[in-house]
Amino acid sequence: MGYYVARRIPRDPRDQEWAARLSQFGVATVSEAQFKTGIMLPRIRPIQQGAAIAGRAVTAVCAPGDNLMVHVALEVIQPGDVLVVGSWAPMPNGVFGELLATGFKAHGVAGAVLDAGVRDTEAIRRLGFPVWADHISAVGNTKEIPGWVNRAVTVGGVLVQPGDFVVADDDGVVVVPRDSVEEVLARAQARVDKEAGTRQRFERGELSVDFYNLHPVLAQLGIEYREEAE
Amino acid sequence: MGYYVARRIPRDPRDQEWAARLSQFGVATVSEAQFKTGIMLPRIRPIQQGAAIAGRAVTAVCAPGDNLMVHVALEVIQPGDVLVVGSWAPMPNGVFGELLATGFKAHGVAGAVLDAGVRDTEAIRRLGFPVWADHISAVGNTKEIPGWVNRAVTVGGVLVQPGDFVVADDDGVVVVPRDSVEEVLARAQARVDKEAGTRQRFERGELSVDFYNLHPVLAQLGIEYREEAE
Amino acid sequence: MGYYVARRIPRDPRDQEWAARLSQFGVATVSEAQFKTGIMLPRIRPIQQGAAIAGRAVTAVCAPGDNLMVHVALEVIQPGDVLVVGSWAPMPNGVFGELLATGFKAHGVAGAVLDAGVRDTEAIRRLGFPVWADHISAVGNTKEIPGWVNRAVTVGGVLVQPGDFVVADDDGVVVVPRDSVEEVLARAQARVDKEAGTRQRFERGELSVDFYNLHPVLAQLGIEYREEAE
Amino acid sequence: MGYYVARRIPRDPRDQEWAARLSQFGVATVSEAQFKTGIMLPRIRPIQQGAAIAGRAVTAVCAPGDNLMVHVALEVIQPGDVLVVGSWAPMPNGVFGELLATGFKAHGVAGAVLDAGVRDTEAIRRLGFPVWADHISAVGNTKEIPGWVNRAVTVGGVLVQPGDFVVADDDGVVVVPRDSVEEVLARAQARVDKEAGTRQRFERGELSVDFYNLHPVLAQLGIEYREEAE
Amino acid sequence: MGYYVARRIPRDPRDQEWAARLSQFGVATVSEAQFKTGIMLPRIRPIQQGAAIAGRAVTAVCAPGDNLMVHVALEVIQPGDVLVVGSWAPMPNGVFGELLATGFKAHGVAGAVLDAGVRDTEAIRRLGFPVWADHISAVGNTKEIPGWVNRAVTVGGVLVQPGDFVVADDDGVVVVPRDSVEEVLARAQARVDKEAGTRQRFERGELSVDFYNLHPVLAQLGIEYREEAE
Amino acid sequence: MGYYVARRIPRDPRDQEWAARLSQFGVATVSEAQFKTGIMLPRIRPIQQGAAIAGRAVTAVCAPGDNLMVHVALEVIQPGDVLVVGSWAPMPNGVFGELLATGFKAHGVAGAVLDAGVRDTEAIRRLGFPVWADHISAVGNTKEIPGWVNRAVTVGGVLVQPGDFVVADDDGVVVVPRDSVEEVLARAQARVDKEAGTRQRFERGELSVDFYNLHPVLAQLGIEYREEAE
Repeated sequence: MGYYVARRIPRDPRDQEWAARLSQFGVATVSEAQFKTGIMLPRIRPIQQGAAIAGRAVTAVCAPGDNLMVHVALEVIQPGDVLVVGSWAPMPNGVFGELLATGFKAHGVAGAVLDAGVRDTEAIRRLGFPVWADHISAVGNTKEIPGWVNRAVTVGGVLVQPGDFVVADDDGVVVVPRDSVEEVLARAQARVDKEAGTRQRFERGELSVDFYNLHPVLAQLGIEYREEAE
Repeated sequence: MGYYVARRIPRDPRDQEWAARLSQFGVATVSEAQFKTGIMLPRIRPIQQGAAIAGRAVTAVCAPGDNLMVHVALEVIQPGDVLVVGSWAPMPNGVFGELLATGFKAHGVAGAVLDAGVRDTEAIRRLGFPVWADHISAVGNTKEIPGWVNRAVTVGGVLVQPGDFVVADDDGVVVVPRDSVEEVLARAQARVDKEAGTRQRFERGELSVDFYNLHPVLAQLGIEYREEAE
Repeated sequence: MGYYVARRIPRDPRDQEWAARLSQFGVATVSEAQFKTGIMLPRIRPIQQGAAIAGRAVTAVCAPGDNLMVHVALEVIQPGDVLVVGSWAPMPNGVFGELLATGFKAHGVAGAVLDAGVRDTEAIRRLGFPVWADHISAVGNTKEIPGWVNRAVTVGGVLVQPGDFVVADDDGVVVVPRDSVEEVLARAQARVDKEAGTRQRFERGELSVDFYNLHPVLAQLGIEYREEAE
Repeated sequence: MGYYVARRIPRDPRDQEWAARLSQFGVATVSEAQFKTGIMLPRIRPIQQGAAIAGRAVTAVCAPGDNLMVHVALEVIQPGDVLVVGSWAPMPNGVFGELLATGFKAHGVAGAVLDAGVRDTEAIRRLGFPVWADHISAVGNTKEIPGWVNRAVTVGGVLVQPGDFVVADDDGVVVVPRDSVEEVLARAQARVDKEAGTRQRFERGELSVDFYNLHPVLAQLGIEYREEAE
Repeated sequence: MGYYVARRIPRDPRDQEWAARLSQFGVATVSEAQFKTGIMLPRIRPIQQGAAIAGRAVTAVCAPGDNLMVHVALEVIQPGDVLVVGSWAPMPNGVFGELLATGFKAHGVAGAVLDAGVRDTEAIRRLGFPVWADHISAVGNTKEIPGWVNRAVTVGGVLVQPGDFVVADDDGVVVVPRDSVEEVLARAQARVDKEAGTRQRFERGELSVDFYNLHPVLAQLGIEYREEAE
Repeated sequence: MGYYVARRIPRDPRDQEWAARLSQFGVATVSEAQFKTGIMLPRIRPIQQGAAIAGRAVTAVCAPGDNLMVHVALEVIQPGDVLVVGSWAPMPNGVFGELLATGFKAHGVAGAVLDAGVRDTEAIRRLGFPVWADHISAVGNTKEIPGWVNRAVTVGGVLVQPGDFVVADDDGVVVVPRDSVEEVLARAQARVDKEAGTRQRFERGELSVDFYNLHPVLAQLGIEYREEAE
């Protein structure tokens, strides 16, 4: 239970393909494919618009006000991974700024998800390194307090284990447990296939109560139709 | 008091003209014209920038976590109307996504105001269907729990009755009671007429304390002028 | 302790140069240069993207729901200054709108920082007058309740004294006490000089644990390296 | 739509009996009896423990920071009524204190529900006048800004019309529309009758899945029983 | 990944003794003994004062607005266990009330921890069944939506696995991973032994800077002593 | 601007008498006597009921997650003083617990006001040392990061300078600037003298609109009396 840095996370030869498919499905579809679970709370928001990423989570567990373990995470993170930062209490600081973003981008990291603040947002947007964070704060950090790299941590209300897949876009962030990727991809694909036809029928004006055959449900629930609102 | 769907809301032949004028006046002016009342809390925010709409409210009152009644609302909503979604408790889910947006847009609906979450935000922005919501959440819904269509409901801290006019832009959302539209339009017009000249005088550098003749007010309130700050 | 308007704030012949340098350094660097202090809470956010300002604070201390003292502040504010609005309790209204923005812009004011709401946000963005605020609200104001101009006030959790320098950009707002400007500028410059080389080395892939020589720190803290995550 | 004071609210000869029964049923039972609707948000909390009241709502609609209309409400309120205070924007002040509590208690008022702050809480508890409020704040008020007495207003996210019944206890506050009291009382009684037997059976250890016959529901939902947790 | 109920959680013959010692140490000491981790966010608060419990977690994972799985949890929970309720999105309802408390108490359950609302608080306090919850809400529930019993779930920002020990008192709630109990107990005991002497010395007026020998630390950090505050 | 500990704060021979009178007046009256200013935000709440204190502020400015400077404050604090703890960013930890409370009580300190968390609340209540805090958290601290003792700091949204008087009771906390004590006491006394008679007249049923002569105000504001609510 003492402080540590774990160098390796679970990986798979198909990681790159899986990441591509997960980011294309997007957060909403992926979360549906795992029974709505794994979605971070809405307070974890993107600082840019239009970015969509997916990758293995490398986690840094930091003390409030300190980002020592983020620096250490850069030692072990691999291209395509996603940096995930959490703590054992709310993180009031801007734990990640332009210099760190430069470093993680230089190492091919896909993006960062922070249950903490971010700073230098304008510079990071210019750099093209996508970040999801709890808030924006210019408050700096110490680099003095121990923590962990690649220990499980709760971020945005969701458990992230090292090697889980993290999917993030304008709708927020969803975590896919590392052992469920294939199952989730299959279910997401089935959902997307079904929705393609749905969209076309809705564009042509078909009512969703008809499409989903909801009238029997409404009747059974005792919902009455009236002519006029009060 | 049992669950129901009311097919019709109060309407007026001048609705289209009224909606055009209300959206042009905008939220700030319309709210002033009704004694500052009817403005939703700041937590109801647009997911896009620059949209400005107005239209009759069709309300869907849903259970937390369920959007069955939103689907039913599509049966009775008319072109130019605004979908308004509320509940009897906070709505943690993304109650409205791309498929529903496609359906409501296909029926000519002006936009949606949700005391709930929205998802598929990037796709909805691309679709050009304007949405104001409490938060962004990818969490999906059931379609199983009864509620009401076109029952009065509180949204963003403001009562919305079916057929009220809803006006929304980058400043948020204001509700104009259905019986007050003409009175409010008249007062808004008077205000705008007055402000046109004001703006020009402010652009030329006239002080607002002079323009509004505030010095006698300041004197009566006992506000003293000093040379130096402490 | 009675209500007053102080006409003059501390100034310096080098104000314009100082403002230029502070806004160029930006909020994150300036705050580091004063030991992380002076940063407003993250709830004070810009309504635009990419603006960066700095200037002397002229403060208006208003009653909740009233903006009389903002109008009075326009009498005493000078080109390049920053309007700062606070209260003795949370300010629920949109205390600042297009007409006031027009007036302050006409007088060459650099921008406004409000521990309150702002309205007419679309128009203010078009006008090009930068604003940082607690929230967006269309709720209007009275002009009837006394307060102060150029009295010290807490805004976004930070004390602002009249004549302090206010620096604001996409990362938020930081306040530099009026007697510390030169000291802070010197420390900020030293930091920026040092960071220039750092950035290049990070771009080339140098690890920050090596650059900052953190391995001895990690060893002393008892952080152990393991091969595998659990 | 101009400012007004309405002297009379709808009343009924059975008000006293209805109030007694509603307060005895309590907030949780009454809300169930009206399909979960009418419950104020959890932020409206009691400042005392163990109080339970019910009575007709007399509403005061005040400007933020001002309590003029609360003073006016005392002119028209009757013994057994409940004072309800709301606004068109969040109310940051302590709108109600010991002196007002003394006045309302002297007139036989049952209690107060405030979408605002309360102050002098220790003295009010000693006085024995029950209050539910959004927060505790010592910030005082002006008595200068117009509003309404006995206009409909949203309080704690729920519409309150003058003459509605307000029921409040340690679980919060629920509003019973003035035309629904008898219907709600009947449904609440039925519920209580049913629950009396339930409680006894639960005390003896009967499982609620058996009592409510939930196993067929579980089977239909596809919920599987396993021996071991992961 | 489909919905399920796991009947058994990890247990140990020493559970009763461990629970007694953990609840006696209390939340603050236990959390220190596991490197500050495992503490739920401050929003999870007791509805009573002075209760202190510890026991194995039996988890119910419910849909927002539904408490079906809480009823099912009663089938598998054992005397001395702690009921833990979470969801995949915020739970706006009062998921637990007097009837359920009666049932769980009848089965010897130690208490309940809810990332949700609680209702019937006065009755539950009278019953003597301790509850920690996110908020108080009278809003009722459906019993229709599937979930899990004894699946891992995040509650108050902390992962709870079935069979983890949950410790709760007036300071909040801490979770001890099921495999760490002995290690944590040992470390907690060591800490308590050390603190006993500390308390006596502090009572006699010894300064903590002397007791902890902090003056060398202060000197190394460059903290200067001055005679006068500014 | 470097880190420091200031040993002395401004004091006055009449401090003990002033403290007694301020705590007797209480937070609501004292704040009125200084134009409503100086009241901390409602989030700073007492952990006990019925305590009322006043005393000179000794401030500890700590890093988030660290309480080193609280220990140092005990070196310089005097009997009757109030400990005030703040930071340059939100403080997520329980910065003050039983051991520290034991130490400060042993030195005759009147109480503590924390813009941070408190822990060991049950033990501190038993000890009889009154505390006002932002929240309750069992999360512990490091003692490693520099800060200041007796530097000005914003706490609960209000500036506290070393030597200011802090008044705290069930209504929260108000800060009296050190140079204003006599002026504030005089105004508070005048207010209390006036209120004594008021209370009696309100107890006898006199209406506050009559007592304050508000009918002319109502007439001038154009508030109309009607017979019936809508």
